[in-house]
Amino acid sequence: MPRTVTLALIPGDGIGPEVVAEAEKVLDRAVAGSDVVFEKTRFQLGAGRFLETGDVLTDDDLEAISRHDAILLGAVGGKPGDPRLKDANIERGLLLKLRFSLDHYVNLRPTRVYPGVPSPLRDAGEVDFLVVREGTEGPYVGNGGSIRQGTPHEIANEVSVNTAYGVERVVRFAFEKAASRRKKLTLVHKTNVLVFAGSLWKRTVDAVAADYPDVAVDYLHVDAATIFLVTEPAKFDVIVTDNLFGDILTDLAGAISGGIGLAASGNINPDGTFPSMFEPVHGSAPDIAGQQKADPTAAILSVALLLDHLGLAEAATAVTAAVEADIAERDGTPRTTAEIGDQIAARLNG
Amino acid sequence: MPRTVTLALIPGDGIGPEVVAEAEKVLDRAVAGSDVVFEKTRFQLGAGRFLETGDVLTDDDLEAISRHDAILLGAVGGKPGDPRLKDANIERGLLLKLRFSLDHYVNLRPTRVYPGVPSPLRDAGEVDFLVVREGTEGPYVGNGGSIRQGTPHEIANEVSVNTAYGVERVVRFAFEKAASRRKKLTLVHKTNVLVFAGSLWKRTVDAVAADYPDVAVDYLHVDAATIFLVTEPAKFDVIVTDNLFGDILTDLAGAISGGIGLAASGNINPDGTFPSMFEPVHGSAPDIAGQQKADPTAAILSVALLLDHLGLAEAATAVTAAVEADIAERDGTPRTTAEIGDQIAARLNG
Ligand SMILES: CC(C)[C@H](C(=O)O)[C@@H](O)C(=O)O
Ligand SMILES: CC(C)[C@H](C(=O)O)[C@@H](O)C(=O)O
Repeated sequence: MPRTVTLALIPGDGIGPEVVAEAEKVLDRAVAGSDVVFEKTRFQLGAGRFLETGDVLTDDDLEAISRHDAILLGAVGGKPGDPRLKDANIERGLLLKLRFSLDHYVNLRPTRVYPGVPSPLRDAGEVDFLVVREGTEGPYVGNGGSIRQGTPHEIANEVSVNTAYGVERVVRFAFEKAASRRKKLTLVHKTNVLVFAGSLWKRTVDAVAADYPDVAVDYLHVDAATIFLVTEPAKFDVIVTDNLFGDILTDLAGAISGGIGLAASGNINPDGTFPSMFEPVHGSAPDIAGQQKADPTAAILSVALLLDHLGLAEAATAVTAAVEADIAERDGTPRTTAEIGDQIAARLNG
Repeated sequence: MPRTVTLALIPGDGIGPEVVAEAEKVLDRAVAGSDVVFEKTRFQLGAGRFLETGDVLTDDDLEAISRHDAILLGAVGGKPGDPRLKDANIERGLLLKLRFSLDHYVNLRPTRVYPGVPSPLRDAGEVDFLVVREGTEGPYVGNGGSIRQGTPHEIANEVSVNTAYGVERVVRFAFEKAASRRKKLTLVHKTNVLVFAGSLWKRTVDAVAADYPDVAVDYLHVDAATIFLVTEPAKFDVIVTDNLFGDILTDLAGAISGGIGLAASGNINPDGTFPSMFEPVHGSAPDIAGQQKADPTAAILSVALLLDHLGLAEAATAVTAAVEADIAERDGTPRTTAEIGDQIAARLNG
């Protein structure tokens, strides 16, 4: 009996549809001939949909999406400064709403310097680390507010909410990952300033560490972590951190590893209560949309994360290997988005 | 009539006293023969003092310090993991207490790649920018708390407080700086997630921009800013940002410019109601303390910022030039802390 996996596709805006098309190509090829069948449903969501209908993400959308086994998202967001989108906040209303509603408490972001990709760092070394970013708490909860808006007496607050429940589950996930890798876990926070949240994170890591005696644990303040990401990135194995610090560190990680164009991510609900969502870290890049200029590699590597999450380890490894081989042979000749996708797909079952 | 400037010296812990000794040497030499006399008072503060007396910063200390014209601080903080310091939080109780009590609402952090200093970046270009970091608000206010501590139901909150009053004054300062430099100002925040604080910052920058029609303004999310600091650092002129983002970005800036060992900073109260405080960005580095291994350059460049703040522009320029000349002639020969200080001092009034 073939196994059917239902996949919600959210191509989104800008270069999103272009890179998702290539990701689909590679996905189809990766499972061709196996006993797994992907059944895809397309959702038109993002700035484009908002401009047409005024909706960002309806309850019906959310309900329909959550009935799938997994989600693949391209990128969402309209042209910066588009006055019609001024009050929309597609990021909060769509991306963050999905992450929060589907309890994506692990935001998984691997960083590697692939052989053949020039890092902007003179001496990056062998970079291969994983950021496990909390996805449902911290300063992202939307518990802000302001009074006297627009007056000289305005006060605007933002509340970072951190719970033992929320921190422990993501910390456990990070330890599991570390245990299966090079057995090193670095907590990044700012315990000397954010003393309450910091203390909760620190105590949680210390407590969970007792269950993983083989994993070496250290701690860095977020400011110092940016220094080490630049000076000694090869030293990191697994970084576990809060939602905002993880956002910042993973863009920096993308930069030092030679480009956000290669950075994949998974928004994961490890319990399996809700579908997990895979997406490139990059945005919708409206300036180059529709021109076949975008590199679909990050979207394709997100497919590898998706396959791995679904337990299809062999297919995941094959996709990663195909991407690596493609990257290693890059010689600067410009290729269209579709050409890159075709060539990576052609390396599968080849 | 000679002008007397009263200076509070806080050498602090670890390498602090060593680098401050060299900074004093250079300061004395820079004003020798001029009509300015520095009258110095030494304050023993930091982990050392806490271990001796149990005090971090008493009301008397604060009162005495605040009667000075300016403050020069080395570095504070004991050995990481020292159990006797476990509950002290010298950073909050001393450094942040000084910044908040003395209304240091501008935290000024220049970044330059000095000719002769190898940047870890392959191609940094001519980097010369200034981060104007807010110093008295944001997530640093200490408005956090937790309930049910130590139980599975713990909730730990941190509140970022932002006021129109606080944001506008630092934004105006940043525009003034930009107007006197390359006339480019970049606001860094995370407006798509921290919507209330972000909106206040954005509206304030837009409003103040009207008074500075010659200054080009742009905006970056903090995550994207880390990418551009790595890929195109030469593009920045003045960055204005909140307390936490400024903390993170300036350590990153130190890293890409070839070392936190050269990064100076000013904690400034532009109104002159309270003394401003100058300090290297680096910490107390207890592991190399007392060995004459520390580079005093960041402390010496902090003296240049101090002189500039006091209106002693000529002396400030001379110190910066002496440092530049010293850096340009570095050839890797190891020098002691005192040797570096002596040699920089010797270049003054040479
Ligand atoms: C678009 C934005 C809300 C999002 C985030 O901050 O999480 C993005 O930067 C990311 O990292 O996926
Ligand atoms: C020591 C710490 C409280 C401080 C800060 O976060 O401001 C330091 O990192 C700095 O940048 O001066």
